[in-house]
Amino acid sequence: MRIEKTHDSVLADFASGFSGFPESVLHEGRRSLVNIFATAFTGCREEPTKAMLAAALPFSSGSHCTLIGRPDRVDLPLAASINTAGANIFDFDDTHEATIIHPAAAVFSALFAHAEIHGTCGRDVLEAFIIGCEVECRIGNAVSPYHYAHGWHITSTCGIFGAAAASGRLLGLTSEQMIDAFSCAASQSAGMAEMLGTGAKSVSMGNAARNGYMSAILAAHGCGGTDAPLTARLGYLNVYSDTPAPEALTDDLGQIWEFATNTYKPYPVGIVLNPVIQGILDLREHHGLSLDQITGIELFGHPLLQERTDRPRAATGRTTQVSAQHAIAIALLTGTATLDEFSDEAAQRTLNIGRPEVSFIDEPDRDITSVRIVVHLKNGQSMTQDITDAAGSRKNPMSDAQLEAKLMAAASRAGSSCDNRALLDALWSIDTSANAGNIIRMTGA
Amino acid sequence: MRIEKTHDSVLADFASGFSGFPESVLHEGRRSLVNIFATAFTGCREEPTKAMLAAALPFSSGSHCTLIGRPDRVDLPLAASINTAGANIFDFDDTHEATIIHPAAAVFSALFAHAEIHGTCGRDVLEAFIIGCEVECRIGNAVSPYHYAHGWHITSTCGIFGAAAASGRLLGLTSEQMIDAFSCAASQSAGMAEMLGTGAKSVSMGNAARNGYMSAILAAHGCGGTDAPLTARLGYLNVYSDTPAPEALTDDLGQIWEFATNTYKPYPVGIVLNPVIQGILDLREHHGLSLDQITGIELFGHPLLQERTDRPRAATGRTTQVSAQHAIAIALLTGTATLDEFSDEAAQRTLNIGRPEVSFIDEPDRDITSVRIVVHLKNGQSMTQDITDAAGSRKNPMSDAQLEAKLMAAASRAGSSCDNRALLDALWSIDTSANAGNIIRMTGA
Repeated sequence: MRIEKTHDSVLADFASGFSGFPESVLHEGRRSLVNIFATAFTGCREEPTKAMLAAALPFSSGSHCTLIGRPDRVDLPLAASINTAGANIFDFDDTHEATIIHPAAAVFSALFAHAEIHGTCGRDVLEAFIIGCEVECRIGNAVSPYHYAHGWHITSTCGIFGAAAASGRLLGLTSEQMIDAFSCAASQSAGMAEMLGTGAKSVSMGNAARNGYMSAILAAHGCGGTDAPLTARLGYLNVYSDTPAPEALTDDLGQIWEFATNTYKPYPVGIVLNPVIQGILDLREHHGLSLDQITGIELFGHPLLQERTDRPRAATGRTTQVSAQHAIAIALLTGTATLDEFSDEAAQRTLNIGRPEVSFIDEPDRDITSVRIVVHLKNGQSMTQDITDAAGSRKNPMSDAQLEAKLMAAASRAGSSCDNRALLDALWSIDTSANAGNIIRMTGA
Repeated sequence: MRIEKTHDSVLADFASGFSGFPESVLHEGRRSLVNIFATAFTGCREEPTKAMLAAALPFSSGSHCTLIGRPDRVDLPLAASINTAGANIFDFDDTHEATIIHPAAAVFSALFAHAEIHGTCGRDVLEAFIIGCEVECRIGNAVSPYHYAHGWHITSTCGIFGAAAASGRLLGLTSEQMIDAFSCAASQSAGMAEMLGTGAKSVSMGNAARNGYMSAILAAHGCGGTDAPLTARLGYLNVYSDTPAPEALTDDLGQIWEFATNTYKPYPVGIVLNPVIQGILDLREHHGLSLDQITGIELFGHPLLQERTDRPRAATGRTTQVSAQHAIAIALLTGTATLDEFSDEAAQRTLNIGRPEVSFIDEPDRDITSVRIVVHLKNGQSMTQDITDAAGSRKNPMSDAQLEAKLMAAASRAGSSCDNRALLDALWSIDTSANAGNIIRMTGA
């Protein structure tokens, strides 16, 4: 007999039973799906995806499910694992700014794989997707800021709860079963920031999706844990954080949506580099700036800009995603900043040609989405560019059309034969789809 | 170019390449295998095992591998998961006293499943098993005492490294690949003490075995992480412990064996209750003590005895495993203490008949393997029994014959049709087996 509900049970009630989604939240769900299908195309042929697939394919029980951008068909757990790993490889997926969680990747894949087998309607998939992302972000808030700073890969560790909640909702779990799914997810939550940029990061991401789905299936079969897996004295929040905030799980739940604060990246770089690239591309396009004119550059930015991106000698594609020196050079050389500009080859190109000298001036009060760029030229003159509310930030989000272009570019780069226009139309109108499995089926190579 | 080897690489060298096992360590390996097959029989038909099997069976890719004590045959990852979960359900498996890790469960299952498919010889399986347990215990030492006290289920979290090391050795990983396997394992290490006694604990145990094996397979396919997944600043030891001891990974490696300090339980109870049961059974057998004679009992023990086992009203089989009041009552009623004496029915029986009043007197200097029992009788007299070095402790280990009897009782209780004598002979002579898969094949129901 419960007198007062725990945070755990309030969150479980919400996950299994919430209805009454505002249209604005539903539309953010569709936008997030367009974005995550785009980034799934970007990662589908990378080395970690290929290694994970090769390792697990002998243990795939069937070919019911699509791998986005690939010809192989695999069973549900493996499809969930691989599509999630691919969608997150470049960290080009959505970002929940408060926690730096990329919420969608762990959540979407099992839902579409499930729909391929069970013919689930699009509206149910969309609602489950939103619920999963919301649960994931709220658990992320409840363990932040300690959790990520301590060394956890928060997108993996919290992603499994998103996958469990979303999958559990599709499976029709009761609220009590949903708590059991949370227990099973808590027992499997893993992933370390140390592994960022390596295959092992993709392994924990794949697990978040696969094991999140399995947590819901296990709960449906009666496998569970304790009454308060999140908030007990030895529960998830206390074990995974020294700054637990249980009220973040449930405050204004269903009224204020963490999911609606999601952002999407226009460029495949660490989020602090966005305003720099935007400013440099603008100087090139509108003021004719070229690399060989430059003697040096000053960046007045949030301290994280220097801390994360002062990497003058970054030599691999992956590390140039967080190198201001490379990003400026390649943007000036090519006039663009897509994944091709952050490859191993692109890194070599700017190392050979020479990257500009960059001085960082830390301004702690500056917003992370803004920068002042001062370029000193060989002719003794200088140019100044101020960016506020960079493209892709919450105050200046990517438009629906820009998200469409991101997906089309990604699919094209992956060599996909997918009818991108039809895929986009299907995602925008997912609410009316009788079988969401038909949507992901369009994306196999 | 490495100037000085990291602890990580020394441990990886050991895991992939150590040879020259002393006979005493090899024999401890055989003893540990007898014990873990015994406890695998005890857990093979419990609810968590059945739920895990039902949840995952639709995703099993084949029937190459045996489930101990069950008729089903499944694929390798699922066999690893289920056999490990079953072997650990009652915590009746082996105990590494320094960390309270149960080392064998996570390690043995994938090795035998692998042997069933690949026809691996018994000597290779035995050596891999010992290596896996040693790596697991050393990583446990390196994160203790903080790790378990903070809320981690150390048998799951460290078990995955044991499974990865053992599996990686069987797969012939190089030392560099072994480090990659450690990275993949670190990315998947999970399990919380909060879930003890529930199905969710079995889920993390199953994952330790399954994902440990997959870590080795992933490494063989080129999926890896960083150079020092264990000892880097944001590596495993620092993320999972506030008292990291990296030197524990490698001090006297291959000279002093943590694995050789393993112990085996004669009774299926929390380890602190062992001397109590031993003393009570002795009083019953040699002094005719019966439950209805008693007015009260005093237990002079290590403080953990009271802290863990003062549970006069424990009402389920699982909780009576840590109830001194029930353990004393049922031992006096039945003259034995097997799993049948720690069932839900047995709990009801002693609740109905009445359990004795027990007073605990904490003696901090007393060894955990000793107790003084003072029994006050209705006739005004009292009996005193002193136990030191209880059966199953390091100083008074179970004999080979007692381990055999434990396996026979467990197989019989599981209704197994296994030829137990032949199974035992095969385990004692595993070094000469051309195919260790034939050993586990004897155990299917």
